[in-house]
Amino acid sequence: MSIKRRTFLKAAAAGAGAATLAAPAIAQGRIEWKMVTLWPRNFPGLGTGSQRIAESINAMSDGRMTVKVFGAGELVPAYEAFDAVRDGTAECMHEAPYIWTAKHPATAFFCSVPGGLTPEEHNAWIYHGGGQALWDELYGAFGLKAFVAGNSGTNMGGWYNREINAPEDFDGLRMRIPGLGAEVLTRLGATTVNVSGGEILPSLQTGVIEAAEWIAPYADLAFGLHKAAKYYYGPGVHEPGPANPLSVNARAYDALSGDLQAIVRQAAGNEAARLPAEMAYGNAEALHALITRHEVDLRHFSEDVTNRLLAVSADVVAEVASEDELSRRIYDSWSAFRDKAIAHAPYGTHGYVARRALRAT
Amino acid sequence: MSIKRRTFLKAAAAGAGAATLAAPAIAQGRIEWKMVTLWPRNFPGLGTGSQRIAESINAMSDGRMTVKVFGAGELVPAYEAFDAVRDGTAECMHEAPYIWTAKHPATAFFCSVPGGLTPEEHNAWIYHGGGQALWDELYGAFGLKAFVAGNSGTNMGGWYNREINAPEDFDGLRMRIPGLGAEVLTRLGATTVNVSGGEILPSLQTGVIEAAEWIAPYADLAFGLHKAAKYYYGPGVHEPGPANPLSVNARAYDALSGDLQAIVRQAAGNEAARLPAEMAYGNAEALHALITRHEVDLRHFSEDVTNRLLAVSADVVAEVASEDELSRRIYDSWSAFRDKAIAHAPYGTHGYVARRALRAT
Repeated sequence: MSIKRRTFLKAAAAGAGAATLAAPAIAQGRIEWKMVTLWPRNFPGLGTGSQRIAESINAMSDGRMTVKVFGAGELVPAYEAFDAVRDGTAECMHEAPYIWTAKHPATAFFCSVPGGLTPEEHNAWIYHGGGQALWDELYGAFGLKAFVAGNSGTNMGGWYNREINAPEDFDGLRMRIPGLGAEVLTRLGATTVNVSGGEILPSLQTGVIEAAEWIAPYADLAFGLHKAAKYYYGPGVHEPGPANPLSVNARAYDALSGDLQAIVRQAAGNEAARLPAEMAYGNAEALHALITRHEVDLRHFSEDVTNRLLAVSADVVAEVASEDELSRRIYDSWSAFRDKAIAHAPYGTHGYVARRALRAT
Repeated sequence: MSIKRRTFLKAAAAGAGAATLAAPAIAQGRIEWKMVTLWPRNFPGLGTGSQRIAESINAMSDGRMTVKVFGAGELVPAYEAFDAVRDGTAECMHEAPYIWTAKHPATAFFCSVPGGLTPEEHNAWIYHGGGQALWDELYGAFGLKAFVAGNSGTNMGGWYNREINAPEDFDGLRMRIPGLGAEVLTRLGATTVNVSGGEILPSLQTGVIEAAEWIAPYADLAFGLHKAAKYYYGPGVHEPGPANPLSVNARAYDALSGDLQAIVRQAAGNEAARLPAEMAYGNAEALHALITRHEVDLRHFSEDVTNRLLAVSADVVAEVASEDELSRRIYDSWSAFRDKAIAHAPYGTHGYVARRALRAT
């Protein structure tokens, strides 16, 4: 992008207004948006999901609105996506809000926090439990608006080159892990780093890190993480249901006609069903492949390790509530629903799966 | 509907063609569809979901296409919806395919079968495991095409006026239960009936039935089933993830322009995320209310009962495969994915929820 265009977009974001921003595209009878993402273009699950959103918008608008998808680093580095959408370098991003805890710690609640909600529970809270209004308030302060557009599913505990038998085994571990999960492991003595997905394998191979969590079998196999670490622990408790919203520059969104706004919202909502489905299918297939073809040493964390992780998680998450008044309201809303969701779980899908497993074994 | 119009539509379905059918509406610059449903209009979860689909299509098409939603019995009785969409009385239905096992036994696989897939696993199989192509083949033979448009979530085992302590306690029980779950209970000696949702409470109150399963706390509370039965058992194993597709008359769909077809598909896909979220939120809240305000006697089935239900379920479901060649292919595809999904479950969301529960208690 030329400096001239960037300067113009900054001016627009600062107050010149959405109408100005969108006018040239409208005059040609066609809106062109850029979507930045935190992962490689067409990366299995996340990247294919981003592409589905773009294709949906194109198809539903009969080409009146097109969205060009950029993989991490193609337009801006992965972790500059938030600022790129704020300043109008891109009109939207397909993202993972816990990456932005340095912008505001409560962003994590709109992605996933340790010991938190499952993907379905997360959507329940966002759509029906008051989550969306709180999210609008938080992201609105940055000039953004977000819509759930996928969930990468409960993450594995990660890949390790040492056994994790007790909580003490995290002490001194150099590990890639983002969000509040990083804070949990830091309190157990680990040194955490947060490199973007594409940098994980080389970081493991060069020994910069000794352990890494990325997502789950489908995505982990795609990055080849099994080539660089021996033990695969899971499930983790640090990211039980990381949501992947489509987050838009609010001025660019406001400049759209009502039908195009609806199309953007529903394209995101459609992906809220599609991405978890692709992950669920891919994880089942990839786990099978990792065990049968790649001889991965698949393990559960011990009860001792899990309980320690959950205990520290509860502290870390509750502390976010004391950061400011908005964080308090977000935590209170989220926490009240979490209690009821936990009470319901034995009578819903999770109760069923536990029973099905007894019969299957 | 007049006999004349019905005759015309039948002729259209028989070959006069979709263009003829849709032409009047297109000439006015606006497509008007009717949607029939299996539940009361605006019934919490299912009915609100049907309405969201209609509103999405209207908003995304900028009013070029409108969908009028009819509750059960408003245009046709609930269980005549399938034929109504086949013959063009309505262009689409928001439905539950296991209701149509008398049309073809394999329809159940595109809704939910006993001991089967969770909602997320179901979507995984439909979208990525070959399910949609098999569904297109099955429904195509009836002139229909279907898109996942929600899931009512793992069903409870139902409401009972007698205790179910052992498999023998189903013997002689008069119970409302649809789909292949009815066949399972029949083999345990129950007499099953399948009345539509709105008829369950009066049937329980008059003693026509002694037990009934409808859905789960949110929907069950809305129908007031706790007023007519004492014991609430769950979760059930008969409907672990009943999908609710938007099923369309193929000719009417083919007559739409490409952008309107995409809009119909994405409106359905969006509801595939929204309905489970509304159910998850509503179930957590309603279960809390049923326990704290309505003093429901909430119970789990014993391990003995559950294992017997699962064992009979496996037989009943496998027998569908021998019905015909298409049923065999559907069963084989579904069954292969189910095995891998079961192997993955302890490392995904369900493994996490089991661990979260240990800490929460």
